[in-house]
Amino acid sequence: MSASVNRQIVLAARPQGAPQDSDFDLVETAVPRPGADGVLLRTLYLSLDPYMRGRMNDTKSYAKPVGLGEVMEGGAVSQVVESRHADFSPGEIVFSYSGWQDYALSDGSGLRKLDPAAAPITTALGVLGMPGMTAYTGLLNIGQPKEGETLVVAAASGAVGSAVGQIGKIKGCRVVGIAGTAEKCAFVTDELGFDACIDHRAEDFEAQLAAACPDGIDIYWENVGGRVFEAVIPLFNFFARVPVCGLIAHYNATALPEGPNQLPKLMRAVLTNRLRVQGFIVWDYAPQQAEFLDTVGGWVRDGRVKYREDIVDGLENAPRAMQGLLQGRNFGKQIIRVAAEAEV
Amino acid sequence: MSASVNRQIVLAARPQGAPQDSDFDLVETAVPRPGADGVLLRTLYLSLDPYMRGRMNDTKSYAKPVGLGEVMEGGAVSQVVESRHADFSPGEIVFSYSGWQDYALSDGSGLRKLDPAAAPITTALGVLGMPGMTAYTGLLNIGQPKEGETLVVAAASGAVGSAVGQIGKIKGCRVVGIAGTAEKCAFVTDELGFDACIDHRAEDFEAQLAAACPDGIDIYWENVGGRVFEAVIPLFNFFARVPVCGLIAHYNATALPEGPNQLPKLMRAVLTNRLRVQGFIVWDYAPQQAEFLDTVGGWVRDGRVKYREDIVDGLENAPRAMQGLLQGRNFGKQIIRVAAEAEV
Repeated sequence: MSASVNRQIVLAARPQGAPQDSDFDLVETAVPRPGADGVLLRTLYLSLDPYMRGRMNDTKSYAKPVGLGEVMEGGAVSQVVESRHADFSPGEIVFSYSGWQDYALSDGSGLRKLDPAAAPITTALGVLGMPGMTAYTGLLNIGQPKEGETLVVAAASGAVGSAVGQIGKIKGCRVVGIAGTAEKCAFVTDELGFDACIDHRAEDFEAQLAAACPDGIDIYWENVGGRVFEAVIPLFNFFARVPVCGLIAHYNATALPEGPNQLPKLMRAVLTNRLRVQGFIVWDYAPQQAEFLDTVGGWVRDGRVKYREDIVDGLENAPRAMQGLLQGRNFGKQIIRVAAEAEV
Repeated sequence: MSASVNRQIVLAARPQGAPQDSDFDLVETAVPRPGADGVLLRTLYLSLDPYMRGRMNDTKSYAKPVGLGEVMEGGAVSQVVESRHADFSPGEIVFSYSGWQDYALSDGSGLRKLDPAAAPITTALGVLGMPGMTAYTGLLNIGQPKEGETLVVAAASGAVGSAVGQIGKIKGCRVVGIAGTAEKCAFVTDELGFDACIDHRAEDFEAQLAAACPDGIDIYWENVGGRVFEAVIPLFNFFARVPVCGLIAHYNATALPEGPNQLPKLMRAVLTNRLRVQGFIVWDYAPQQAEFLDTVGGWVRDGRVKYREDIVDGLENAPRAMQGLLQGRNFGKQIIRVAAEAEV
């Protein structure tokens, strides 16, 4: 490669509320050279995911925050440009944690080779990547879907929710999605095959949700929080399960919402219905990755699990796309196309 | 027995907020006579338990409400007065669901014979009864205590909490109790052997709790809700478990508390710490009753598990004692002594 400039998007400031353009800087550095056993990767596609909002905060969580001035973290599909590592050759396509930049070095750890013949390489960021594995492991381990149960999925047209609902259908559930526009809802029912989908921006959302769940809710896939969760609470059946995967409605919050305090309402539902509300992150289930890739890979190849991608061109547009993702402006898995695959 | 009057305490009105004297009536009826295969029981000791407040409401729960004009439900230690049932003889002592009355009929189902030589018969209402089994099954199945973990127990001097903490000690946990007076806290540490106990009425309760849990909280036994739970939330460790057994601080509530809305704070903790918050009732674990009686019975006989009873004389005082129980005025397992055991 003749390029000598590595564009990087770094965290310039910790966002107060919704991230602003000024919270990010695009800096140009020299393309690094791999040392002994090193690999130089060029980013082809960058994944944007809601969890990244958490990395921008300096608070205790399951991963340490991105430091100010550091490159934003993120999964990517990358191409090997130069390799001094025995396992990797120029031209190979890998999943990497390259972050928001054109080029990254790797010592080979954390890289996973992708076979472009098996599935489109972008799926490694979505349905066959972290979001898909989140859906698969969280639903099966915590949700424990059973034939005939009602599964409600928040953010149903998104990367995780779309997989959750389709896996729920495969497991025999009645699946009700929740999404943010009529167009998304139509996609969720018509393309993904959910039994129903409710627009959470509708004025009578709560009544529509109740009507779509005549037998109550056995599993609620929590991705969202806020009004959606509060509408779900009265509908729980005995022994319902709530895998808590995300809370995107709250990620930009700088203070708790106004009252009344809904916490006792939830806890009363937990007690009287014997709910199981359980948070998780995908890597808690890392040993299930091979099983996930095999199972969901097969479903994707068979067309039983579909996916939708929302691809934005240009690394420089990642900050804006991230802002949109946190507002639900994406439609499907949010991906940044950073560079075209090179012929080797 | 020569008595001909059966005093019954019936639910006269559904309490609005805290139960009042006027929500109960004491009525006198004739002592019933057992039919074929029937047993006439005389109540010796009546159990008062926080769950009874829920039975006074006409709302969906895990059990149907007590009807207006119906005898209040409750477990009791009773003596067989007359028996036409092959399995029971006059003079025998049994656990029964006789409710708030002097006499009750039974067809034998739900009766469990008690051996006064094995343990004081009142323990069938407390440490070796429903409260003790609640503690044992909820802690082991949901709490899953491990050596060296920190277990925090709300309502620590009560029937359930005192057993939870002592079982936690046997399992090798650091156990921190929370109770409502200095006297209760002294009992919890000095008599029950908890490592610490914090008075939740202290102004700096939150700071004291944090100081008593230098390694965070791995298990929180939720019996209470309210301020206590909100103080616990910031202290959770990764993968902490929260068996939700009761919410006594909210049982008399007629509306949600004022804001801010703390629900997102809990859900964020659930997500980032991967908490498991799970409600249960003791009969979800009914198959473990024999194991419980054997194990905890042994601990009680060995003196490894202690208990304290708060016995009030006279059936007519049950409504007042129930009101006090909901305000934490009892000190130990609340029991009503209804009648003396008769010599047979």
